[in-house]
Parts: sequence; C-alpha cells; structure tokens
Amino acid sequence: MNFCESLNAAWQQADSMLCVGLDPDPARLPAHLAGSPDAILAFCREIADATAPFACAFKPQIAYFAAARAEDQLEALIAHLHAAHPGKPVILDAKRGDIGATAEQYAREAFERYGADAVTVNPYMGFDSIEPWLAHRDRGVFLLCRTSNPGGSDLQALEVGGERLFERVARLAAGPWNTSGQLGLVVGATFPAELARVRELAGAMPLLVPGIGAQGGDIEATVRAGGRRLLVNSSRAILYASRGEDFARAAADAARATRDALRAAAARL
Amino acid sequence: MNFCESLNAAWQQADSMLCVGLDPDPARLPAHLAGSPDAILAFCREIADATAPFACAFKPQIAYFAAARAEDQLEALIAHLHAAHPGKPVILDAKRGDIGATAEQYAREAFERYGADAVTVNPYMGFDSIEPWLAHRDRGVFLLCRTSNPGGSDLQALEVGGERLFERVARLAAGPWNTSGQLGLVVGATFPAELARVRELAGAMPLLVPGIGAQGGDIEATVRAGGRRLLVNSSRAILYASRGEDFARAAADAARATRDALRAAAARL
Repeated sequence: MNFCESLNAAWQQADSMLCVGLDPDPARLPAHLAGSPDAILAFCREIADATAPFACAFKPQIAYFAAARAEDQLEALIAHLHAAHPGKPVILDAKRGDIGATAEQYAREAFERYGADAVTVNPYMGFDSIEPWLAHRDRGVFLLCRTSNPGGSDLQALEVGGERLFERVARLAAGPWNTSGQLGLVVGATFPAELARVRELAGAMPLLVPGIGAQGGDIEATVRAGGRRLLVNSSRAILYASRGEDFARAAADAARATRDALRAAAARL
Repeated sequence: MNFCESLNAAWQQADSMLCVGLDPDPARLPAHLAGSPDAILAFCREIADATAPFACAFKPQIAYFAAARAEDQLEALIAHLHAAHPGKPVILDAKRGDIGATAEQYAREAFERYGADAVTVNPYMGFDSIEPWLAHRDRGVFLLCRTSNPGGSDLQALEVGGERLFERVARLAAGPWNTSGQLGLVVGATFPAELARVRELAGAMPLLVPGIGAQGGDIEATVRAGGRRLLVNSSRAILYASRGEDFARAAADAARATRDALRAAAARL
C-alpha cells in the first residue's frame, strides 16, 4: 500500500481530518511529569492515546526531541504510535532539505531509523534534493509550499514569471516532480485564499495544513478553501489544553471539538 | 568575541580558506574502523587532527550522524574539535528552517546541545524563521543562497522582480535581515559567475562555499569570483582520499594540496 492509499484509508476509517501535532515543549509539560527521565515520551504517548479516536494522523516535530537530547524517546514514541494506533500515518515534521547524497542520509533517518510514514521537506534546493526521499516508495513527502508563519511571505509570495513562488512549487509538485504519486504539500491555514489557489493547482494531492489553533487559522475558512483531502494539524491548542493531571482528557476534549468543527465544515461543502 | 571576529582570527591564524567537511558515510569508512561502536567519531577525529594544520574551520554534516543513530558521537566530536583545535570554528551543517517556536528548539539543539559556533539555515520560510537563531549573539548563521547541486537552479534561479531568487536572498541577508552582523551565505563553487554576483551583493559577508572536489567546482575560479572572505569546504575529496590505514595521512595530503591551491589562487587576486 503506498502512502496515498494509506492516507485515504486513514481518512475514511477515522472520519476525521485532524492531525495531532506532537511538539513537546519541556517548558510546558504538565507539572507532575516534569523531571521524570522519559517525560517527553510519557506526555506524547498519553496525548496520542487520548486523542487517537478523533485523529487520522500524528505529526511529531523532531526539533523538540533533538533539543532535549531525546531521540530515543522519539523512536519509542513512533513505535508506540504504530503499535497502538495502526492505520494512522505518522508524519515526521523535520523540514529537511539537502543535496542528494545528504538527503539519502536524512531519508534513512526519517524512514528507517524512526519508521515515519511521511516527512516534511523543504523545496529550496530543488528536485534533486527531493528525489532521494522518493526512493522509499511506500512513504510520503510533504513539500513546504506556503507556510503559516508571517515571514512565509518574504520569499514564497514573490512573483516568478506571472505567479508567486509558492504557486510554482505547487505546480512543480503536482506535475514534473510528482514522479511516483508520493508528494503532498504544506500550506498554512493562516492564508485561506492562498490555500484555495494551491488546491486549484494541486488537484487531489493531500495537503498538510498547520496554523489553526495557536497560530490563528480559521477551520471553516480552511475547509472551504482546501476541501476534504486535508490533514489539518493542531499542536499547541491540544497539547497544552491543560497543564494539570487532567491534561490528556483536556487534550481529548480539544481534539474532539476540532474534529467536530472540521466535520461540520466539510458537511457544508 | 562575535562569530565574524572569530572567523577573521581563524582565517588569519591558519592562513587558509579551507573548511574540512565531516560527512562520515558509514559505507565509506576505512575497513579497519568499520564495525567498531564509535567508528564515526574515531574516523572524524583522526581526519580533523590530521587536517587541522591546513584548515581554518570544520563543518560536520549532521545527517550522517543522525542516520547512524550517532548523536552522541557528534557531541563528542564537536567537544574534541573545540578542545584540540581552539580558534577553528565548527559550523554545524543542518540546513534547518522552521517557524519561530520550532526554530528556537533547533537553535538550542545546534548551539547549546552541540555547541556549534555557526549553522547553516534554509531561508524559504523567511525572516521570522531566522530570527530565533540570531538571539544567540556570539554564533553565526549561514543562509542557503545559491546551492551547489544541479537542482539548485529549480527555484533559486527564478526571476523575481528583475533579479534571481538567490540574489534576493543575498540582498536581504546583506541588508534588512542582518540585524546583528551574524549572517553569512552558502554559495556553491559550481556556479562561479553566480558566486561573483553574490559577492557583489554581500559585501564583506563571509561565504561558505561547498562544491569543490567531488562536486566538480574549480578552486581558481572560486577564489577569483568570491575573493578572500571564503570558507571553501571540501568533504569527500579529503575524507575518502584513502580507505586504507593511511586514510588520515592521505586526508592531510589532500587538505594541504587544497589549502595550497587556495593560497595560490588568492595570491593572484
């Protein structure tokens, strides 16, 4: 089964477009977990188990693990996600991008070491920096296209031959670069008009959409712009819904509410 | 001492523009080291110690360590480089790029965990993805500008308002983005005319130049185009000069030859 088929099955089975982002900031962990040697793993595992009924996928952000010297906890987390929640893809948010020989090593890191089902990749270095990822035929690759941060406009919104840079990335990703149907795109929820434009260019390609919740993107506008083939990511609004001992239940409540809002918006399409 | 001052001192003290790239491919290690549990560290340490007399800086590529589950060896390597070769900056080649909150974590990884003196960063997500790195005032940040790989042209050579995208990146990095003098640029040796153009735009900013050696860039053309404020990186041509037990001596010979060729080219400026 290739990544797009897995994702189709995950959407259908969960009846949800919610992707739960696992960005464990050590400074924001529940007080009763802080200090334990595998606090990050324990926190993410409880969040994942509590939110799984409402999610179609998980997206751990590797930076939080790397900064905390906790690669072993990331390995254990992804192994747990696969074992406890089969059928829900794990997207490793790493935003790597390097020349071919180095990209091969990064692909080994993401797909072999961590066993991720998909990754995020930066397109600035062009197609030969993306190709080594695609050699892993059953995995998916989400290219950064229009990112959710304010500075995303600095380069991505520049005009290149009658279209903006992010439109060119979308066009390349939907066309010549998508040699094997493994590509998706990352498009922020904070720019719904641009999300709609990417959807026009990208056809049925899956879009990973960060930016709702803490970053301010609107669910209704996101679904209207992007349609049904979305992985709408929420991280901080779920992870830090409570810092008390009830953090997992609070996270589940936040995930359910987001799942429901996404469903309601999709029903109005 | 800020990073540019450190780099000025390193250039002067070493009288060399050579940066030795430490990209330890497990498949290409000397036969007698392969299989030992810290083979990567032992290999890189011997290469560094042998080539240090000819180098002004070192550039470990994190992908090779991460793919091999060898972050601890990267920590030990950088600690060794600082202890054994003080005054030679260590540039962690990581090409990270993410939204502010995540970039903070990546900066902690590179500067606090690994103790790197500088890093490489991808500019696609714009200035707010670069800013958190600059909060570490004594460190340097090399932004990808014109990369050495063929696909580097796919996006970087696109016209944006009368200049190419990499020229825009150079102009931003030399101007509004360089709020604290910590920025440098990555420009491949494989495109000397474009290196010359970046030098025009970037003034005296340090340029990290990969692409000589295995990637085919020419030393003479590189120095003519880029001038003296260059970190000219060579990885594979030095690391794999021999796979026998004489690998460190062969690496030293290759490093000396490259250093000498760089000096000769600079003398003709």
